[in-house]
Parts: sequence; C-alpha cells; structure tokens
Amino acid sequence: MHPFARFKRGHLHLERVELFSDGVFAIVVTLLVLELKLPPLKDHASVTELTHQLVELAPKFLSWLISFIIVCKFWLNHNHVLGLAHRADYGLAWLNSLFLMGQAFIPFPTAMMGEYPTNPLAVSIFGAVLTVNTLLFIALQGYIVRNLIKPELKSAQDPRALVKALVGPASYLIGAAAAWLSVHAALVIYLLTPLFYITPPEWHGKVQPAADEKKL
Amino acid sequence: MHPFARFKRGHLHLERVELFSDGVFAIVVTLLVLELKLPPLKDHASVTELTHQLVELAPKFLSWLISFIIVCKFWLNHNHVLGLAHRADYGLAWLNSLFLMGQAFIPFPTAMMGEYPTNPLAVSIFGAVLTVNTLLFIALQGYIVRNLIKPELKSAQDPRALVKALVGPASYLIGAAAAWLSVHAALVIYLLTPLFYITPPEWHGKVQPAADEKKL
Amino acid sequence: MHPFARFKRGHLHLERVELFSDGVFAIVVTLLVLELKLPPLKDHASVTELTHQLVELAPKFLSWLISFIIVCKFWLNHNHVLGLAHRADYGLAWLNSLFLMGQAFIPFPTAMMGEYPTNPLAVSIFGAVLTVNTLLFIALQGYIVRNLIKPELKSAQDPRALVKALVGPASYLIGAAAAWLSVHAALVIYLLTPLFYITPPEWHGKVQPAADEKKL
Amino acid sequence: MHPFARFKRGHLHLERVELFSDGVFAIVVTLLVLELKLPPLKDHASVTELTHQLVELAPKFLSWLISFIIVCKFWLNHNHVLGLAHRADYGLAWLNSLFLMGQAFIPFPTAMMGEYPTNPLAVSIFGAVLTVNTLLFIALQGYIVRNLIKPELKSAQDPRALVKALVGPASYLIGAAAAWLSVHAALVIYLLTPLFYITPPEWHGKVQPAADEKKL
Repeated sequence: MHPFARFKRGHLHLERVELFSDGVFAIVVTLLVLELKLPPLKDHASVTELTHQLVELAPKFLSWLISFIIVCKFWLNHNHVLGLAHRADYGLAWLNSLFLMGQAFIPFPTAMMGEYPTNPLAVSIFGAVLTVNTLLFIALQGYIVRNLIKPELKSAQDPRALVKALVGPASYLIGAAAAWLSVHAALVIYLLTPLFYITPPEWHGKVQPAADEKKL
Repeated sequence: MHPFARFKRGHLHLERVELFSDGVFAIVVTLLVLELKLPPLKDHASVTELTHQLVELAPKFLSWLISFIIVCKFWLNHNHVLGLAHRADYGLAWLNSLFLMGQAFIPFPTAMMGEYPTNPLAVSIFGAVLTVNTLLFIALQGYIVRNLIKPELKSAQDPRALVKALVGPASYLIGAAAAWLSVHAALVIYLLTPLFYITPPEWHGKVQPAADEKKL
Repeated sequence: MHPFARFKRGHLHLERVELFSDGVFAIVVTLLVLELKLPPLKDHASVTELTHQLVELAPKFLSWLISFIIVCKFWLNHNHVLGLAHRADYGLAWLNSLFLMGQAFIPFPTAMMGEYPTNPLAVSIFGAVLTVNTLLFIALQGYIVRNLIKPELKSAQDPRALVKALVGPASYLIGAAAAWLSVHAALVIYLLTPLFYITPPEWHGKVQPAADEKKL
Repeated sequence: MHPFARFKRGHLHLERVELFSDGVFAIVVTLLVLELKLPPLKDHASVTELTHQLVELAPKFLSWLISFIIVCKFWLNHNHVLGLAHRADYGLAWLNSLFLMGQAFIPFPTAMMGEYPTNPLAVSIFGAVLTVNTLLFIALQGYIVRNLIKPELKSAQDPRALVKALVGPASYLIGAAAAWLSVHAALVIYLLTPLFYITPPEWHGKVQPAADEKKL
C-alpha cells in the first residue's frame, strides 16, 4: 500500500473545512488592524500633534492595506478551489491546515514591515512569507485537482493553470529580492501581485455555470 | 469586451461570502471591547479609586457603544442586501471585501475617539471613516441590485432607494464637520444616524414574504 | 399603525443571525484567555519563581473559569431559544444585537474581577453586568415566544417559564449585593448560578422531538 | 430517574455546535500568532540587529508551530467525532464546551513555553494541559459513541479504539515528565504526538463511505 494512501481515506464534511477556514481568514484580516496602535499624545486636544502622529503611522496603514487585499485574494482563490472538490479527505484537511498556518502567520511579517519599513530584511521577509503561502496554496489546489475534483469539471482543466499559478510566488519572490535594492520597489510589487488574480480563471466562467445551476 | 466584464464571471458560493463576512462582523464588534483597558489602581481594594477610574473611562464606553450599534446596523443591512442576490460573482466578492476592509478598520478610529474625545480631529476622523464605510456599502448594494438581484424582486425596487441610502453618508459627514465646532454635537449625530436605519425598508415588507415563504 | 410594528417586518435569514451570534460567542470565550497575562520572571529558568507567579494568578484563572462557563450557558440557552423561532425579523435582530453587546462586554468585568478580586466594587460590577445580560436574554426570549414561535410549539409553553427565567438575574443580583459583604460569597454565587440552567427546560424534552424528527 | 438523564434530553442543532466549535478553533490558532511580539530595534534599518532579534524569537516560533499543529489535529478529530453523531443533546453540548474551554486555554501554556523554554515547569505544564485536553476529547468521544452514534455506524466500532485513544494523553504525560530531565526531549515528544493521529482511524475508511454517499 502506498504510504500516503491512508490520507485519501476519511470522509470529512467539506462544509466544516470551509467554516474553519473562513473563521481563520476573518480573524486574520481583522487582527491586522490591531497593529495600528494609537499614537500617544502629550496634549490630548492638539490637532497638530495628532496629524503629525498619524502621518508617522503611514507605513503601518500601507502594510495593513497590502495585507488585507492579499488575504482577501487568498480567501477568494480558496473559495474557488474548494468549490472544485466534491468531498474532503484527510489529505485535503492537512494541506488546508498548513495553508491556514501560513495565513495565520501573515500578521507577524505585516507588523514587522509596518514597524521597520526602511529595513530591507523586514520588507524581504514579508515577500518570502507570501511566497511560501502561495506555494502552500498551489499544493492544496494541486491535491484537489488530482484527487477530489468534481467529475463534471475534470475535462475543463486549464492546461496552463500551473504556469499561471507560479506567477504568484515568482512575483512575491522578486519583491523579496527587490527589497534589498529598494524597499519602495518591493512594496509596489507586493501591491500589484494580487491584482493579477482579481478576476476568475477564464475556463471557470465557461464551465461552472451549468454545474452550479443545479445547486441554486 | 467591457474591461469589467470578467468580474461578472466566476460563480462563488454566496454562503461562503456570508460566512466570511459574519466572521469579520463578529470579530469587529468583539474586538472593540479590548479598547476598554483596565484602569491601574494604587490600592487594589479601594472602591473610591476604582469608581473614579471608571468615570474617567466614560468616553471609551460611549465610543464602544456607538461603534457597536453602528456595526450591528451595517451587519443588518448587509444581511438584507445579500439576501437580494441570487448568486455571487467576483465583482460582489471584491466589493464585499472592500466593504469589510472598511468595517475591520472601525476599531482604530473608535479607539482614537475614545482616547482623545476632546480632539476635534480624532472625533472628525471617526465620522469620515463611517462616511467611507457607508459609501462602500452603497457601492455593494448598487452592484447587487443592478447585476445579481433575484428575478422576483426586480419589480419591487424602491425608486427613492438611492436618495434614502445617501442620508447615511451625508449624516456622518455632517457629524465629521460638526466635530470642529463641538465634539458633543458630533457624538450625538453619530449616535442618531444608525437609528434612521433600524427598521427595514418599506418595500421590503411588501414583497419579500412571498419570496421567502418558499424557503421556509 | 403601532410604532413598533415596522420591526416585525423584514425577513432575515435566521441562519445568518446564528452565524453572527456564534462568531461573537466563540470570540468572547476565546478572548477571555488573553487576560491571563504571562508573569514576568527575573530568572527565566526558576521553577520556584514561576510557581509563585502562577499561584498569584489564581484569581484570574477563577474569573476566567466562571466567565467561560457562564458564556457557554448563555450560548446553550441562545441555541435553544433561536431553535423555537420559525423565522427572523428586525425586532429579533436588534434584540439579539443588544444581547450580543452584553456578551461582548463580559471580558471587561471579568478582567476587572480577576485583577482586583478584593475590591467589592469590581466583584459587584461583574454580577451587575450578568444581571443585565440575563435580562437582555429574557427580552429576546420573550419576543421570540410572543411573535416568532413555531406553530407546533405554541401549546407547549411552560406557564412557569417567566418565573424560572427570573431566577437567573435575581441570583446574579444577590451575588452583586453579597460582594459588599464578602467577595468570596459573591464568587460562589456566580459559579453556582449557571448550574441551575445546565439541563434543558422540562417541557422541551416532551415536545421538541416530534418537531425535530422531521428535520433530521 | 437517573440523575444524569436530563442531560440526554434537549434537542440542539448539531450544526450550531459545529459553528461555535469551529469559531473557537479558528480563533485559538490565529491568536497564537499574537504571542510573536515584534522585537524592539535600536536602529530600525539594521539588518544585523533584526536578524539577531529574530533568532532570539526561535523558541516562540517553535511553540507556535507545535500548538498550531496540535490544535489542527484536535479540530480534525473533533470533525470526525461530531460526524458520528446523529443529533446533539445537552450532554454533548456541555462536554463539548468543556473540551473547548481546554482548547481556548492552550494559548496561555504556549506563550509560557515560548517565553521560558529553559524552565522545566513551563515546558511541563504545556504537556499537562494537552493531557487534560486529550482526556476531555476522549470523554466527548465516549459520550457520542455510547449515546448519539448514527445507527448505521454502531456495528463498525473499533474494539481497540479506547486503547488507541489513550496513546495521546499518555504520550503528552510522558512529555510533561521528560521536561524535568530535558526540555528538548519534551519538545520532540510534543511535536511527534499529533503525527500519530494524522491519518483517519482504520475502520472509518471502511464504513463511512456508504453512509456519506447519501449525503453528497
């Protein structure tokens, strides 16, 4: 028996995988705001002082914005990929848990980049963490497409899907490298990467409707 | 092809959009309480000292109360609007994510207003953030009504809906402006605005029952 | 038209009320543990020092335990009461939001009681907050039983339900009063009160099965 | 009447037990990252200083990793066990609440072990807490198997299930004891224990499919 065969056993409720995942996504995006610590003011009523302090917080606001959009993009792709599966097994549950571990870690490099935006290591780690997150997502996607895909979607696979999927980690990796030359360049790359994925994969639109119509 | 046409593709599970959104709403309202930091006491058993410290916290309690009611009102309207859609697409998912980004940001201006209630900038930013939040909600609502509305509800549109919807952002904007004259006036406006929306839209009551009865 | 009649309009998804509520309950019980702050040690490897510091934390552990059990009890009762409703309207949504506001507030008095266990005001406020929470729950329950109850459950009402329901707030109020004589007595009362509700109401067991069987 | 008989009454929605539990699980795994506090830097742009500080955080990263995997393992088993039940009663709800209380507590010993990795008491308490958590889970599992199991799964019980189940608490207990000899040995044991459970129970694979097929 293949050593990994046991992971393909076990029938889990796909719905609970979604519940748990959506919980983690929701908490991650909301926890990000906790890093926006309130600036201490000497004169509580001073508008000048508060304006100055809020301007100082700009890198944190930007970090928060980038992370929020990236996590929403992951949520959207996760939604899409779990929608391809017709059931859940232990392999999916573990790959999903590892992927969520990556997501739950995001507040740490976000806070670090927001606190030390001039530190190339801090900015580079952010890109490295997102590279790993994207690879974990590709692993989850690959497992579902190979093992758990709904029969009616099997023929609708995009042969260029893997190439496209690798654009994400490659782009974050370039950002992580760019941070050593210019932290601003890295931030721009981090901000642009999720935009590549904001529309659904092309083949999706062609096939899914028929399959989904039944459910509605 | 229209540049935004791709967003109208992609069939997402409306249920997961609700799951993710309710997670964010639930965390936002619960995180708000974390701003109510415990007052430090010199004499741990002193009733007088604790009373004094709790009175000092009054602006924070009020900020918490206002934000809690406002977020609940947004949740209720969100519940109503997503109930109009018969399916989800990428456009809805992204507009929803932007709206949730606004919601997740609310704890920051809430904390700022609670900490510096005498600072007109702090009180004004609270109103500005809520104006943006209400506009993001109107964008989401507009998108659903134009593109994703259940066929049976199409004829039931309230022609004055947009005018009514704009009362919210206008009111918060007036509050944000009023903060520069009197922070107390601003607080009263912030507190009264959600009350305008606590009952359902009129046309809703007339039409929905029939549509919903089937589901029950 | 009765001024409150509009609240009885609006057809909301009962499922989303449950989703939002369960999110709030889950976050409240989990946030409670954040009050258990790690003790600072001079000698990081010292077993004696850590033991001493953990013993000092005892009142916080006890506060945490009491609050956890009480919130779980509220969750259980909430689960029961929402199970009586056949649909949701705006009245239910707002009463539910007010009830959740009370729940979301619980971490504050819990932290206060854990930090200042010898302060009668701190211990008394904990009881007062729970009294209000129980009254908010009774209001929600009353609204559902009067307006939204499933037809098949109408005849199964326990005539003594209101009297029984008032045992909770009365008991917490006695605890809040007792705190001024002895904080230990108050803690015992707080701990015992939820035990009164850990089993389901008697009439529930007699009637619900038939009604539920259909769903399973 | 048996004193515990009342707990077997009360028909709760199994779905809400899952909702509440998944919320708690999701928050616990995500809160763990909050312990990864950002290191303070004298020179914000210094790569050397940040590298040094991140290396210092290594025990916290390891604590976070171990706890994340353990909580995911508990989630997976919880998913499996609740899938065996055909309905929920008050007994299940309370045993589940106690189990979740144990899960919600995990961030505290995780933070303690991450902060004081050389303190045998801190490392030992982590193992003791997990032992209690595993016992609470076994209690929940036993209750479901005895009282609420789906009729079609009754004959499929693994007679060695209890023996297997006790491997978990025994292993964590050995880790807790080993901490007094070597904290490194304890960490290795904590890390290896969940791996014992990463694949589904053998009998599960044989029986569940038929039962689940109907649902899909």
